Amino acid sequence: MNVLYVFAHPEPRSLNGALKDHAVAHLRSRGHAVEVSDLYAMGWKAQVDADDSTVPPASGRFDPARESQLAYANGHQSADIAAEQRKLLWADTLIVQFPLWWFSMPAILKGWFERVYAYGFAYGVGEHSDRHWGDRYGEGRLAGKRAMLVTTAGGWETHYAGRGVNGPIDDLLFPIQHGILYYPGFDVLPPFVVYRAGKMGEARYAGVREAFTQRLDSLESTAPIPFRRQNGGDYDIPALTLREDIAPAQTGLRIHLAAE
Amino acid sequence: MNVLYVFAHPEPRSLNGALKDHAVAHLRSRGHAVEVSDLYAMGWKAQVDADDSTVPPASGRFDPARESQLAYANGHQSADIAAEQRKLLWADTLIVQFPLWWFSMPAILKGWFERVYAYGFAYGVGEHSDRHWGDRYGEGRLAGKRAMLVTTAGGWETHYAGRGVNGPIDDLLFPIQHGILYYPGFDVLPPFVVYRAGKMGEARYAGVREAFTQRLDSLESTAPIPFRRQNGGDYDIPALTLREDIAPAQTGLRIHLAAE
Repeated sequence: MNVLYVFAHPEPRSLNGALKDHAVAHLRSRGHAVEVSDLYAMGWKAQVDADDSTVPPASGRFDPARESQLAYANGHQSADIAAEQRKLLWADTLIVQFPLWWFSMPAILKGWFERVYAYGFAYGVGEHSDRHWGDRYGEGRLAGKRAMLVTTAGGWETHYAGRGVNGPIDDLLFPIQHGILYYPGFDVLPPFVVYRAGKMGEARYAGVREAFTQRLDSLESTAPIPFRRQNGGDYDIPALTLREDIAPAQTGLRIHLAAE
Repeated sequence: MNVLYVFAHPEPRSLNGALKDHAVAHLRSRGHAVEVSDLYAMGWKAQVDADDSTVPPASGRFDPARESQLAYANGHQSADIAAEQRKLLWADTLIVQFPLWWFSMPAILKGWFERVYAYGFAYGVGEHSDRHWGDRYGEGRLAGKRAMLVTTAGGWETHYAGRGVNGPIDDLLFPIQHGILYYPGFDVLPPFVVYRAGKMGEARYAGVREAFTQRLDSLESTAPIPFRRQNGGDYDIPALTLREDIAPAQTGLRIHLAAE
């Protein structure tokens, strides 16, 4: 496999750093090619702004989507953005690792997606009609590739369970797994989540590393999360609501998973 | 009221900028005091790193939570962080406005919360025992204050409805409204959301502005989202799972809302 490993923790000598180092070494030992985007080490610019294009805004004022579209179409993207897009196109597997901060990804990583996911590259792709609403949610530039989140949380597993006070981890990660990874086409594997990350002794770490290794060894065979395809017939277009006869009268995030 | 208005859009001459300018002028015209944190205009640093403290990491390596705790306790926080904390303590109402990018807040705003929400200020507050698991989710340093999100989305309202393909807006915003605002004690008002924000003509804008004005005029009287208090008896401690007899056998995000 060609693996792009995106990593967002400020300290290499951390639990996150140890897991990343292990994963990269292990994948390479299995013969895979691995590119690492270590966002803190790269000094990644987090915020979207007019410097993301090498030319000034067309209209004098900065419209983020419009300027992203123009820069992508005309080859005016800043070099750091274009380089990450090349890595995404090269990879067949994307691993994204981060500490769960305030129930989502760190700012620097959010800014990686916001800047690298250009209009015309990751969104604004494909025709919009009464039968097809863009190449997204199961189609798109990154279709055919696999992605997996790796994240560490300070809280206990029960705090993130189906009835846990923080909300179920799958629901908290829905905006990322469905809205960011599945959107431009990735098949999204179940996440690898480490709980009580602040209380990690050597014995428990050995077990975590072993479980992580098993996930790395099964990247090609693990069944993805069965998100429904937007243009596959399950949704009314252009309302993009789930067809009335599917999971009738139900609402929420889990109706977007196909029944087993 | 004392209102802190946190704003995260890179272009002042945008729909977001117009809504923010209107809100600030309107609130002041009603006699309220308004402080604005315009993150792009301030050049807000998005990423958490060792520069958030004026002294080097205690252990030589950078542990974000530990260093945040030490810097907050010992007065070593960088000046930009301390200034925002003072604004939060001064305010009785917080308004947070942003374009919805990839189903969450822009990186620069996520980085505002990550840096300003110090350990000992917004988390790691209060005792942990078998009856009380920290001052959070209904208690905390910011209890008694109100907060409201204001956000703009490119998609249609149906795309964010109960059965919409993007997921219901309330569920997408749960990590922010519950995990970031309710966590340190805010009472969270229902969000003000503008859909199809890229297709905004003058006639529709007039209606949006009028609806927004009504929300601004009712900040003190609008009923907050009825999230359950963590230490109020609804959750088993320390598992922090909802008591078996409340919403029995249900899982997901909405069980954390008290029944009407």
